[in-house]
Amino acid sequence: MTVEQFATRHIGPGPDDERRMLEVVGHGSIDELMDAAIPEVIRWHGTLDLPDPATEAETIAELRALAARNTVAVSMIGLGYHGTHTPAVIRRNVLEDPAWYTAYTPYQPEISQGRLEALLNFQTMVTDLTGLATANASMLDEGTAAAEAMTLARRASKSKSAVYVVDADALPQTIAVITSRAEPLGIEVRVVDVERDELPAEFFGLHLQYPGASGAVRDHAALVEAAHAAGALVTVAADLLALTLLRAPGEIGADIAAGTTQRFGVPMGFGGPHAGYLAVRAGLERMLPGRLVGVSRDADGNPAYRLALQTREQHIRREKATSNICTAQVLLAVMAGMYAVYHGPDGLRDIAARTHAMAARLAAGLRAGGVRVDDVAFFDTVTATVPGRAGDIVAAAAERGVNLRLVDADRVGVSCDETTTVEHLAAVWAAFGVPAFDGDGEQALPAALTRTSEFLTHPVFRSHHSETAMLRYLRRLSDFDYALDRGMIPLGSCTMKLNATTEMEPVSWAEFAHIHPFAPDAQTAGYRELIGQLEAWLAEVTGYDAVSVQPNAGSQGELAGLLAIRAWHRSRGEAHRDVCLIPSSAHGTNAASAVMAGMRVVVVACDDDGNVDLVDLDAKIDKHRDALAAIMVTYPSTHGVYETGIAQLCAKVHDAGGQVYVDGANLNALVGFAKPGKFGADVSHLNLHKTFCIPHGGGGPGVGPVAVRAHLAPFLPGDPLGAHVDATPAISAARYGSAGILPIPWAYLRMMGASGLTRATGVAVLTANYVAARLRGHFPVLYAGNKGLVAHECILDLRPLTKATGVSVDDVAKRLIDYGFHAPTMSFPVAGTLMVEPTESEDLAELDRFCDAMIAIRAEIDQVGSGQWPAEDNPLANAPHTAAMVSGDEWPHPYPRSVGAYPGGVDRAGKYWPPVRRIDGAYGDRNLVCSCPAPEAFED
Amino acid sequence: MTVEQFATRHIGPGPDDERRMLEVVGHGSIDELMDAAIPEVIRWHGTLDLPDPATEAETIAELRALAARNTVAVSMIGLGYHGTHTPAVIRRNVLEDPAWYTAYTPYQPEISQGRLEALLNFQTMVTDLTGLATANASMLDEGTAAAEAMTLARRASKSKSAVYVVDADALPQTIAVITSRAEPLGIEVRVVDVERDELPAEFFGLHLQYPGASGAVRDHAALVEAAHAAGALVTVAADLLALTLLRAPGEIGADIAAGTTQRFGVPMGFGGPHAGYLAVRAGLERMLPGRLVGVSRDADGNPAYRLALQTREQHIRREKATSNICTAQVLLAVMAGMYAVYHGPDGLRDIAARTHAMAARLAAGLRAGGVRVDDVAFFDTVTATVPGRAGDIVAAAAERGVNLRLVDADRVGVSCDETTTVEHLAAVWAAFGVPAFDGDGEQALPAALTRTSEFLTHPVFRSHHSETAMLRYLRRLSDFDYALDRGMIPLGSCTMKLNATTEMEPVSWAEFAHIHPFAPDAQTAGYRELIGQLEAWLAEVTGYDAVSVQPNAGSQGELAGLLAIRAWHRSRGEAHRDVCLIPSSAHGTNAASAVMAGMRVVVVACDDDGNVDLVDLDAKIDKHRDALAAIMVTYPSTHGVYETGIAQLCAKVHDAGGQVYVDGANLNALVGFAKPGKFGADVSHLNLHKTFCIPHGGGGPGVGPVAVRAHLAPFLPGDPLGAHVDATPAISAARYGSAGILPIPWAYLRMMGASGLTRATGVAVLTANYVAARLRGHFPVLYAGNKGLVAHECILDLRPLTKATGVSVDDVAKRLIDYGFHAPTMSFPVAGTLMVEPTESEDLAELDRFCDAMIAIRAEIDQVGSGQWPAEDNPLANAPHTAAMVSGDEWPHPYPRSVGAYPGGVDRAGKYWPPVRRIDGAYGDRNLVCSCPAPEAFED
Repeated sequence: MTVEQFATRHIGPGPDDERRMLEVVGHGSIDELMDAAIPEVIRWHGTLDLPDPATEAETIAELRALAARNTVAVSMIGLGYHGTHTPAVIRRNVLEDPAWYTAYTPYQPEISQGRLEALLNFQTMVTDLTGLATANASMLDEGTAAAEAMTLARRASKSKSAVYVVDADALPQTIAVITSRAEPLGIEVRVVDVERDELPAEFFGLHLQYPGASGAVRDHAALVEAAHAAGALVTVAADLLALTLLRAPGEIGADIAAGTTQRFGVPMGFGGPHAGYLAVRAGLERMLPGRLVGVSRDADGNPAYRLALQTREQHIRREKATSNICTAQVLLAVMAGMYAVYHGPDGLRDIAARTHAMAARLAAGLRAGGVRVDDVAFFDTVTATVPGRAGDIVAAAAERGVNLRLVDADRVGVSCDETTTVEHLAAVWAAFGVPAFDGDGEQALPAALTRTSEFLTHPVFRSHHSETAMLRYLRRLSDFDYALDRGMIPLGSCTMKLNATTEMEPVSWAEFAHIHPFAPDAQTAGYRELIGQLEAWLAEVTGYDAVSVQPNAGSQGELAGLLAIRAWHRSRGEAHRDVCLIPSSAHGTNAASAVMAGMRVVVVACDDDGNVDLVDLDAKIDKHRDALAAIMVTYPSTHGVYETGIAQLCAKVHDAGGQVYVDGANLNALVGFAKPGKFGADVSHLNLHKTFCIPHGGGGPGVGPVAVRAHLAPFLPGDPLGAHVDATPAISAARYGSAGILPIPWAYLRMMGASGLTRATGVAVLTANYVAARLRGHFPVLYAGNKGLVAHECILDLRPLTKATGVSVDDVAKRLIDYGFHAPTMSFPVAGTLMVEPTESEDLAELDRFCDAMIAIRAEIDQVGSGQWPAEDNPLANAPHTAAMVSGDEWPHPYPRSVGAYPGGVDRAGKYWPPVRRIDGAYGDRNLVCSCPAPEAFED
Repeated sequence: MTVEQFATRHIGPGPDDERRMLEVVGHGSIDELMDAAIPEVIRWHGTLDLPDPATEAETIAELRALAARNTVAVSMIGLGYHGTHTPAVIRRNVLEDPAWYTAYTPYQPEISQGRLEALLNFQTMVTDLTGLATANASMLDEGTAAAEAMTLARRASKSKSAVYVVDADALPQTIAVITSRAEPLGIEVRVVDVERDELPAEFFGLHLQYPGASGAVRDHAALVEAAHAAGALVTVAADLLALTLLRAPGEIGADIAAGTTQRFGVPMGFGGPHAGYLAVRAGLERMLPGRLVGVSRDADGNPAYRLALQTREQHIRREKATSNICTAQVLLAVMAGMYAVYHGPDGLRDIAARTHAMAARLAAGLRAGGVRVDDVAFFDTVTATVPGRAGDIVAAAAERGVNLRLVDADRVGVSCDETTTVEHLAAVWAAFGVPAFDGDGEQALPAALTRTSEFLTHPVFRSHHSETAMLRYLRRLSDFDYALDRGMIPLGSCTMKLNATTEMEPVSWAEFAHIHPFAPDAQTAGYRELIGQLEAWLAEVTGYDAVSVQPNAGSQGELAGLLAIRAWHRSRGEAHRDVCLIPSSAHGTNAASAVMAGMRVVVVACDDDGNVDLVDLDAKIDKHRDALAAIMVTYPSTHGVYETGIAQLCAKVHDAGGQVYVDGANLNALVGFAKPGKFGADVSHLNLHKTFCIPHGGGGPGVGPVAVRAHLAPFLPGDPLGAHVDATPAISAARYGSAGILPIPWAYLRMMGASGLTRATGVAVLTANYVAARLRGHFPVLYAGNKGLVAHECILDLRPLTKATGVSVDDVAKRLIDYGFHAPTMSFPVAGTLMVEPTESEDLAELDRFCDAMIAIRAEIDQVGSGQWPAEDNPLANAPHTAAMVSGDEWPHPYPRSVGAYPGGVDRAGKYWPPVRRIDGAYGDRNLVCSCPAPEAFED
């Protein structure tokens, strides 16, 4: 009696497919292939110690049981996390829609116009509400956004001071993240009661919270002026909902605004994921970290969106980078932006007004009952002083199903939001022991700070207020995009594989979605058990001793790992060790993270085969022996090869007193066959959005746990509410980072088990080698390891063809769109190449469709090369072809329309059409526009 | 403090839109408009007595509370309803995907190829498994499918007998439905123990259950032979899962197979909706009731799907109809077909084998414990004889969370399914008081009935077994189709309005999805309270005294209503009253239902204004005074007009002793403004899938409650497990019909409340009058009532234009696709016209887009009329234009490609492209192919 294994659904190729691929690759079995591919020195021959694989139904049942151990209370804790109503039409048609959540980062803008428009809405929402010129396309959370604001201020400030002043009424977790980030960079953070205490004489930046964590709404204009006088920049961490009623940060002179958009329809999720935001005044836009969507034009001159100013990004700047952030929170930013689209300015104002009225009524009731409430202006949060009684009151409220904020023994914070009802207020009053209150409270917003400026005036915020209109808008945008639900996304180093529905469904459950990150432990037993199991399973899979899921992106995991190395050296009295060796082939993020961890980057050369040059390594170690802190390598290498020298490399670095960081980006080629923690590494970050099935979400959320050997475990990230900067830094604002999506990798591991995971790795390596074998005759495959085998991805070298014909890697990538594909990774790690990672989830039919397309494209390149088609006017140069182009009344091109539109027998009826032609990115960078263009721009 | 009202999301036009439309229509307010439009004689001036409107969040909370009062037990009751695992990828991407659930019936096949292919998969699955030649595209449930099989047998049989023999081991609810249907048709049902008793000498049909309700698997070959010898046809009601292991009905000589596909991944839903099936041997295909998908070809000669043999349908045949079914269960049929696609033949066989092995093990354990188990072959169900103990055992099992079937005081039935686990068996054994059993049971399928024939050999059942492949297949198909998520579907009489996500979400909840219709009352308190409230609210809205939600389609509601009238006459000793008056404008289903209720149809003429001709009515009443049973009228009329004579009409019929049936199809024009139960009607059916927001699902599910005044209440449908044919017939197999989707109308009513519902009606009438006003100058608007106003829809007369130019209503309908619309209703109620119903959910932007398109099309017609374009080659004749056509290498047409492709400024980037050109329906009817064509057919 066979029970259906989830692995057979996750893994694309069936037994027949597997047999045919093995024949082409020339191996008798997957085991034999893996024996040949993986160096024996790292090969691990055990069976992963994981629970036997559960069926999808069993897994859902177990997750239901875990969920049932969480308690969904009414959250009035505040501190940047609020109850919110996700409009059901957005939940179902964004968060739960594979067209949105399986999309990749919009690096191929022609096939990403939908989410780019959605992100532009987000940016417009942020700039409008903050009153600043430019916002990026989201940050990881408020804490990291504030930390990025700090480093931006330092870059932009003319002050020589290393002092950063932080409002004592800032969110405590923000202070923790800022402080953790500041320390390795040599920045001194001074937490100051800005209402009472004087500012220091010199400082480069000032961080204000608006409204404050206490709820107080203060007029910061004078402080802003003082800071500017000192040459400092001012960041205002502002609540966007409050800004619908309050003067915008830009209107009081702020240079930067940072914060979260969580309460715009994104569930709390025990801490994340949500979209943080960052906005700057005019003049600072080119210093913004993260991704920025801008308007440019396509080959027909029509407006088109793409990521702007990509040269700022860390993958270009490497050790000169000023930020390591890479992943954004696209899926959540789309939700928050759509929340604004759905409600519009009037709707948002109504929500804010209702929220404020609830808080005002709450305060009135407390005061009427004799409770002392801070006599300050407030928006949604009230702080009550109840000497010695705070703990009892918080407990009494919890008994009534309401969580309040225990500020200290004498003070209780109560925060209202759009979900607050009169019943909730009644429970709060009861917990305080005061009578219920019947009237309205007094308006408590300061008249001087009343917002008078318009916002969200663009028609997009006024056109989709019925559910029907909203549904169609979401459909229209998602139809523009190419995601995994249409076909293969063979992106090397990104592991675009199945995000199974069973993994995704629990994310929407109330018991996971509606938990505040600072909810009492008694209410989060299910979550914490799930996280504990997940960390243990990840440790087992990687061979490490301890794992922290706090880092909410791979880049943050890197930082956490390097900080652990740094702290370890310091704990041993070797604080001087600050050199980080990084191979020239490394992902740019590595170097950026090292810089942020206070290290100096020293590059190690690679040899002609793409492997770390062990001779150069020896030289660099010799040169920096005493200062050597660490080496960061990716394994398999970013070239997609199992380097045989890895064990030697680890030994050399260890011998010199350094630590070995193995970037876990390519873990999909190792699981079940090799464990970094066992073959010599001390620390890795993992990408749960690659190997462990969290969907890419169109460019986030990601989760980047850090995994370490036992000696580094004491230095893993700490609870942001009680972190110790030196040892256990706050990497994210919430203790478990993006906890809300951890059911996804949990379910993946639970359903695959040891056998499924191991088989997945084998099939991933098989599909990569199959593609390499089929395409080798048409494009040189760069780099290979043992016996000419690649690992889980292969690099196709286009440089000779480009040289001979002028057809560029870009042309091929765009031409693949015409064939119905997302391009492979372009020009990474080697310029002029394509890196293909098919993963285990693609079946043979799709792999063959891709190989056939590439072979057909090779023939097209030859036609250009032979002069049959002119170099500047051929199907490659003109790709991608839109429907409007191929059906134009004129057709001036030297090849038939059918060749442009339907190459290689592409399915005519089901063809995916990109909405725009090739986009001119440089034009948009020269003419930077990063908010919604007027509708007239789109007129024909 | 405004609280957001759901009504503002449901209703498309905002206050500005409303004002602008009122100006065009020439009324000062909606109230004024409604005063003018609705005859005062029927106008109701009260406020609906409904709970105050709840917000979406409150409604979900209330539904959660109701759901919590249902108990999800392990169901081992069987009787045609089984536990099943809905593959999550199908749940999320079909059941929960608006692209599938908001689609209309595929009457416009060019924009319905996705669901037509999915239905063809369903038909192929049914024909393959049953071994018969042709299956239709689904039936309402197994009971009604079996009843339709009976009438089909009667039509096809050469026997003069009126006797229909039914296997005593048939499902009890099937027997109830068959018997209820037979009685008014003069068919005598004889329930016979076919194993022991002799068949009657003469009979026209034989119904066998395979396996039987008891679980017994019997070889029916000899019975089939005997029936055929008597000139009777044989229906085998077969379990499709069992048929993966057992000889097919077609292989043992059955003429017809009927049943349900529920256990193919469709949740039980307390009785429905699920897709029933009906299949026939070669030679009977043109007698099949319901919808049949077939393969034809498009204008390019490419294969294309469409509904075949539509001339058989009831809306054409009217009083000559042999079936009144109209709605199918498309959404559920798609799910069941996709379940087969996802599992494939091997997967289905595995599931069946596992299910059988569980049953065999169960039986072995019972026998080992000394329990007597029927000594017969079985598949999944075991009947145990436990003299006097059955009730106790069933109760003991229920205490352990398992529901068994209480056959009678001495017998217990236990049914296994794909969700059965060893733990469930242990609970059953414990309930029986026998020890747990450890070994395997003996195979209990008869060797002689082992299936040897192949099934599901088409590649579609072998290509989509990974979740990635399945997801893409679902996306590909849904992308072919045009549903409400793309744009307006202005179908007169069909009320295609918003199906809000908040209404839809509860349908997926386990507490509503996983309840067996025969679960003990103690486990269904929440469901029954919800249904009770819904019935009460519907009674309030319609002005009736009692409502039954049992009828699972409008047609079934009609039948139930007419049977109530019939039973009432009989109860008064007036059994001779059998004439049903039906206006010539009526929907064809009306007449068909009357025939099925044993009535004679007499047609009443309409006058030139489309109103019932009261003079002719008098004449017909005079002629049939003594035999007059009822009149069936639609209000507002099928012409979309509030007829002023309605009160008079009711009085005349009542005076003659007849009853008044008001078809509730157009209730969307009345809610809050008039109540049929108060203005003279005795009975109505409602269409919850029109006025009350159940989505059309691409052609079902529908729900058609019957609402009656008090004197008819005793004759409403009864519980199929205890129905009395004469008085309380079984209309559906389950007591509450399609209970699983009743949360949808409940939520709609709960969120709209009196104010929202009333406003919705006013806006629906406003939008229709706005469209009429804007288009009147371009197309004559047929019929209008008071002050030239239409009700909620308007008829555009194309006949003069067709006569002058040759451009047909078809051409206009297909041309609308090029403009990005679904066509309005074609040629109903008047041939050569289009009937437009915009509903309240479309906003002004979309209404204007539609009006602009119609006006542009009018100009195009003029260009044909003026000879500028030839009659046989113009954008109308060639519509719809596919992308392949307009991008073809050749363009032989006398108008530019851009005119074909992008008329009237249609959005180029977001254009919806139909996958095929105009379909030649007649070709397919001449060459009938109703299962999946070989892939080669699609090669270029």
